[in-house]
Amino acid sequence: MTPTITAFKASPDRGRGLARDMRVRWAFEEVGQAYEVRLVTFEEMKAPAHMGLHPFGQIPTYEAGGLAIFESGAIVFQIAQTHAGLLPAEADARARAINWLFAALNTVEPPILELQTALLAERDKPWTQERLPMIHDAIHVRLGQLSARLADADWLDGAFSVGDLMMVSVLQRLGSSGLVAEFPNLAAYVARAEARPAYRRAFEAQYAVFLAASGG
Amino acid sequence: MTPTITAFKASPDRGRGLARDMRVRWAFEEVGQAYEVRLVTFEEMKAPAHMGLHPFGQIPTYEAGGLAIFESGAIVFQIAQTHAGLLPAEADARARAINWLFAALNTVEPPILELQTALLAERDKPWTQERLPMIHDAIHVRLGQLSARLADADWLDGAFSVGDLMMVSVLQRLGSSGLVAEFPNLAAYVARAEARPAYRRAFEAQYAVFLAASGG
Repeated sequence: MTPTITAFKASPDRGRGLARDMRVRWAFEEVGQAYEVRLVTFEEMKAPAHMGLHPFGQIPTYEAGGLAIFESGAIVFQIAQTHAGLLPAEADARARAINWLFAALNTVEPPILELQTALLAERDKPWTQERLPMIHDAIHVRLGQLSARLADADWLDGAFSVGDLMMVSVLQRLGSSGLVAEFPNLAAYVARAEARPAYRRAFEAQYAVFLAASGG
Repeated sequence: MTPTITAFKASPDRGRGLARDMRVRWAFEEVGQAYEVRLVTFEEMKAPAHMGLHPFGQIPTYEAGGLAIFESGAIVFQIAQTHAGLLPAEADARARAINWLFAALNTVEPPILELQTALLAERDKPWTQERLPMIHDAIHVRLGQLSARLADADWLDGAFSVGDLMMVSVLQRLGSSGLVAEFPNLAAYVARAEARPAYRRAFEAQYAVFLAASGG
């Protein structure tokens, strides 16, 4: 049974691979699982059919057999748990990889989401220029702590895992802000992940959707 | 081997149970696992010994045998996975419960964290009064979607699970804002969870720490 996920028909990131389907595509590629993609417009995302799958009206969703789930962290974890390649077999190492998955989503991503809110929803507000340095500082503190923990290792805990996949996916959201580049070991960590063949395949697949949507 | 967690020696919430050790205490109580607590001051939290356990210098941490992890979502999941009582046995139901665990932390909690930042770190900033309604609106949208999905069910997906434990823990952070009360079924959902004997035991345990710290 080939799983089906949903993704933006016209991603607002213009093919840069920053939407949350990219994490899921990447996980599928890492474990060698074929998948199908159903593209949805912004209108379809808020319509009852999609809201039945995803109560918060977002992408991605995941359907396989009788199972339907919707949270990108849970989808990536489900893929990792039902295939070899993204989680260590040994119980403690597995728990530590899962710990990094949660740390990416719940400790590192929240200030990055605040930055996105400031740059998108509050871009034209009079306070945004004054708030941006405060948000940058909060992100800088988190990245400094992450950089110190990673030190000169290739990955956060032994072999590449679902924790690295999600951490890199979160760091990528900082895009051209220059915040990651302040920590050379984090910039190298992201580049190392982006060089993985599975990442490249996932990136090309989402980029093809952008090209098709833009008539390319 | 009794697991050891860390918690604030003097919690900034003055015994209201809003710090992240509460989620972990509650999970231990639900599954009937005894645990030990090591209290840390704010200074100790940023010192090398604690930063070795928790690279972001926060609480809680979890140590059991040779395993040390630090993210509250991962700790609660580890407890749920190694004991009966917080995750269904059937694979698809289990994946859906885990989906709600991630949804609580990564979809519902982020705007609530933005509210906390506005009320604490930016309380005296000139823009905060104008930003608060925007943040309230964002939270209101999320809660409305959650309320619609919960409808008149007792829990998010069948029996009480780790997903409900985390969702309630996140909703509690809205405290006296009145935002949860706008959705009677969510208010009843939180009250239903807080009436669980395991929740009461966990709450009393963290409250005892507050009383001791305040000389009570």
